[in-house]
Amino acid sequence: MDARVESFDDLLRAASGVARKRVLVVNPANTETFRGIAEAAGSLPASFLLVGNPGAIRDGLETASLDPSQIEIFDAASKGRAVELSIAMARDGMADVLMKGSVDTVTLMRAVLHEASGVRAGGLLSDIFVFEYPRRERNRLVMITDGGITAVQDLKTKVELIRNAVTVAHALGNAEPRVAVLSSTEFVQPALQSTVEAAALSKMNERGQITGCIVDGPLALDNAISPAAAAEKGIRSPVAGQADILLASSIESANALAKSTTYFAGYRLAHVVVGAKIPVLIPSRADSGDARLLSVALGMYMAEHPRASVR
Amino acid sequence: MDARVESFDDLLRAASGVARKRVLVVNPANTETFRGIAEAAGSLPASFLLVGNPGAIRDGLETASLDPSQIEIFDAASKGRAVELSIAMARDGMADVLMKGSVDTVTLMRAVLHEASGVRAGGLLSDIFVFEYPRRERNRLVMITDGGITAVQDLKTKVELIRNAVTVAHALGNAEPRVAVLSSTEFVQPALQSTVEAAALSKMNERGQITGCIVDGPLALDNAISPAAAAEKGIRSPVAGQADILLASSIESANALAKSTTYFAGYRLAHVVVGAKIPVLIPSRADSGDARLLSVALGMYMAEHPRASVR
Repeated sequence: MDARVESFDDLLRAASGVARKRVLVVNPANTETFRGIAEAAGSLPASFLLVGNPGAIRDGLETASLDPSQIEIFDAASKGRAVELSIAMARDGMADVLMKGSVDTVTLMRAVLHEASGVRAGGLLSDIFVFEYPRRERNRLVMITDGGITAVQDLKTKVELIRNAVTVAHALGNAEPRVAVLSSTEFVQPALQSTVEAAALSKMNERGQITGCIVDGPLALDNAISPAAAAEKGIRSPVAGQADILLASSIESANALAKSTTYFAGYRLAHVVVGAKIPVLIPSRADSGDARLLSVALGMYMAEHPRASVR
Repeated sequence: MDARVESFDDLLRAASGVARKRVLVVNPANTETFRGIAEAAGSLPASFLLVGNPGAIRDGLETASLDPSQIEIFDAASKGRAVELSIAMARDGMADVLMKGSVDTVTLMRAVLHEASGVRAGGLLSDIFVFEYPRRERNRLVMITDGGITAVQDLKTKVELIRNAVTVAHALGNAEPRVAVLSSTEFVQPALQSTVEAAALSKMNERGQITGCIVDGPLALDNAISPAAAAEKGIRSPVAGQADILLASSIESANALAKSTTYFAGYRLAHVVVGAKIPVLIPSRADSGDARLLSVALGMYMAEHPRASVR
């Protein structure tokens, strides 16, 4: 296994050393997308397959001044056709990473999940948000899931969400990530379903039903990420204070928590959708250039470690 | 109405100018509590009624070197008796602010909510977390609710949560606070109950069922607090980008979001429980000295504006 990736600078270094990857972009049509492609092409061993309207693509490429040797254009008459063609190309092994351009996320996810898509891996698709947590000793990468895709997160779904996040941790060289199942308290409270599910997930991990990680919960955020807060509460747990993966209680909670690390704390971020045969990137319009580059690097690095990225 | 309180420095200034307030502390017994009392007594026009074991209280006062003229001690033989006596004193108008010492929060809340307590105000008790949001032009106080008390937050409860938070905004001189009902998306999605409830709360505000504020939702966190993010999404709303109150989707989400502003962003904080006849403070052991002082100042300032703090 390669060296462990513990920071975003580690990730950029590691991703710049992988074998060349083909990143397929579904219907690139806006400035941010082309700028992101140009920056990634400039610093990572990637070639880009651009599927969409050739005229629009050539215009975009000109403004972003991209090296033509890293680019291939595939003609699609419409947005819908671009999605179809992209999925077919991914199925046929022509791409290592799938990246959303100007397409609705829901439309792209539906196409990936379609029974006949050929790119499903049999499980749930879920969004993994990664942020770099500044620590005195050494910064750490921490994940939050799932604030983007999975609307209904019941116990069964949460098992899948943990498994998907764990594949990302494994790809980054963390063989046994610590998963904190978040709630508003560290006590099991019958009236609070998230605490009951957290207990169940911990026990499933103990019984070998969820493997490759250490799961503990319920934990409130402070107990999950601050060793001092965990110690003050007297919580004895291998996860408390040093969680690598934060499983939030709901899509709303994961979404708000992830955005809080960006908008309030100003942390760097990357995000990737896991659960298909290849990593899928769904950059948001609000993503910074740095976040776009880090997300491409994350997708490429996961593609380099396919056993990890597909369970 | 007094000048508007827009930052925590404003709050400390404003609270130091109120008529002397009596802060009743239920069973003070640990160092942090006495240190908090000493700091508040040193900078705010408060006297403290300490209800508990007199020996333990005198020991605590000595280590914290408090001015005896600001202190009165009330003898209670046990923790349970301290709670009973405190509630009775509050009911009889002997206290302006109630503050938790070494007592379980649930025990204290139950005593306040008890039918015969005499300190109920008829509505829900809920926790209002306030943080100072650094902005280029001017910092702002933003509230998050309810991450501490209300386990089940259905539509009916959410109406009460908004009303309670609005009383705090009113006490701070914000006559028409902007309330963002948070979700993971700004679209109403039938499968996502929080988005449906957000739409209902917005409409209830339009119809005059929730007054004294402007409610809009669903909004994701970035759309609620960043004017740029709201503009990028094309969201037209008087709330988007400039929310004063963030109604999270659940207790877990409010708890994680509030802790994120403290542990990740390093923002200053205060918190107060609203809905009883007087403000109730439930400092957490992890609260910093600054947070304890700001919370006492908030409680005192709310007590100075009783029509605002009791609806």
